[in-house]
Amino acid sequence: MPSEHIVKSYDEELDRLNKNIIMLGGMAETQLATAIQAVTRRDAELAAEVVRNDVAADQIDREVETQVLRLLALRQPMARDLREIISALKISADLERICDYAANIAKRSIALAQAPMVRPINAVPRMAKLAQREIADVLDAYIQRDPEKAREVWLSDEELDDVYTSLFRELLTYMMEDPRSITGGTHVLFIAKNIERIGDHATNIAETVYYLIHGVHLTESRPKKDRSSSSVVLPGPSGVVETEEGPDPS
Amino acid sequence: MPSEHIVKSYDEELDRLNKNIIMLGGMAETQLATAIQAVTRRDAELAAEVVRNDVAADQIDREVETQVLRLLALRQPMARDLREIISALKISADLERICDYAANIAKRSIALAQAPMVRPINAVPRMAKLAQREIADVLDAYIQRDPEKAREVWLSDEELDDVYTSLFRELLTYMMEDPRSITGGTHVLFIAKNIERIGDHATNIAETVYYLIHGVHLTESRPKKDRSSSSVVLPGPSGVVETEEGPDPS
Repeated sequence: MPSEHIVKSYDEELDRLNKNIIMLGGMAETQLATAIQAVTRRDAELAAEVVRNDVAADQIDREVETQVLRLLALRQPMARDLREIISALKISADLERICDYAANIAKRSIALAQAPMVRPINAVPRMAKLAQREIADVLDAYIQRDPEKAREVWLSDEELDDVYTSLFRELLTYMMEDPRSITGGTHVLFIAKNIERIGDHATNIAETVYYLIHGVHLTESRPKKDRSSSSVVLPGPSGVVETEEGPDPS
Repeated sequence: MPSEHIVKSYDEELDRLNKNIIMLGGMAETQLATAIQAVTRRDAELAAEVVRNDVAADQIDREVETQVLRLLALRQPMARDLREIISALKISADLERICDYAANIAKRSIALAQAPMVRPINAVPRMAKLAQREIADVLDAYIQRDPEKAREVWLSDEELDDVYTSLFRELLTYMMEDPRSITGGTHVLFIAKNIERIGDHATNIAETVYYLIHGVHLTESRPKKDRSSSSVVLPGPSGVVETEEGPDPS
């Protein structure tokens, strides 16, 4: 029965594709967690490890792409199967970008450890925890093919944006009060921005999981609370004065 | 002759897909150019226009995705045709991200115009010119299906990284000398980072164009000269002292 053989082998290939996505997802979680440890412990060895491991993430992403092209060419899937395969390609690209951001956080942690210590930056591990939970939850949503869970992740990113915006303003204030904190503060700003971007990629994945299952897009407009792009913080005569202009243009 | 009809209609569909990519590419060029004008002229009206136009870019990207799924399902393409279609999906995603970065630059230009003026930031329009040339050249490479031109774009991104790294260090120095420039300087830092990321997306597109034509990846490792992630700038007793640690861990 050759047709049964083909079906089985097709399922096996899809299964391998799935496993690669889940492996890359686990890698994204670990890389982010380790990069944040490198920041908080000022551990250059750990940071270098994260940077080295990023190569493996790129390899898996490329392997996924090859698998996808092979599945499309040989199996010519339709409807849900087609969405499964294209979704794997998109999710893999998002996970690979998350790994890139983790590697950049690790690089910055090395420079940060050499700059004069800025105040304890508790908001960074707090942001990282939120981002890690988003990655873990969206992977669960993918594994369980659960669109409601995907939608919850998509909505939860608002909290991460909030923490980022307040950290942005706080850091600018520190930097104004103490110019020695400018280099360190700038690296922390970019680390925080990287975590915020990781959250955005988790929401991209959530959108893809939703589309994969329902075949329609999550159309309601997502609450986007990152206001840092339009934040103005000014030094005033009686210390730091914060001003904020009108509504965000987005 | 129904088969000829199908072939013609398939070519037409591919052609429409191509036109959407080229349209989105033109939009990316315009959005970046206009966002930079908003920065240099401190023109909030122009900035708001860029932010508003970003919706159209998202729509084209989504339309490309729908076209790709339809082509894959109905035409079941192989080999080069399959690469054409998957490449369109990837290039569209990169162009849409370039538009997102342009919109973020526009948003920041509004905050920047309200912060105290920092020194003339000529490096920003200079960086933008380099990025615009990358986008224009990589679109030409795509339109002409010219892998050599794609490879040239891929190599040229090094110059953009160089300008970005020196701007990063220069801005930190200004911010240390004058705390009133910190808010403005931070927005300029993120604007510069956005332009640097636009260059990265142009090199992604260059890689995709090369793969589309040759069916193999551009494997030599691209020179990556952005050293800002590991820059340390410290204030010293005799003005600003710049230090730089060992080799970049990447």
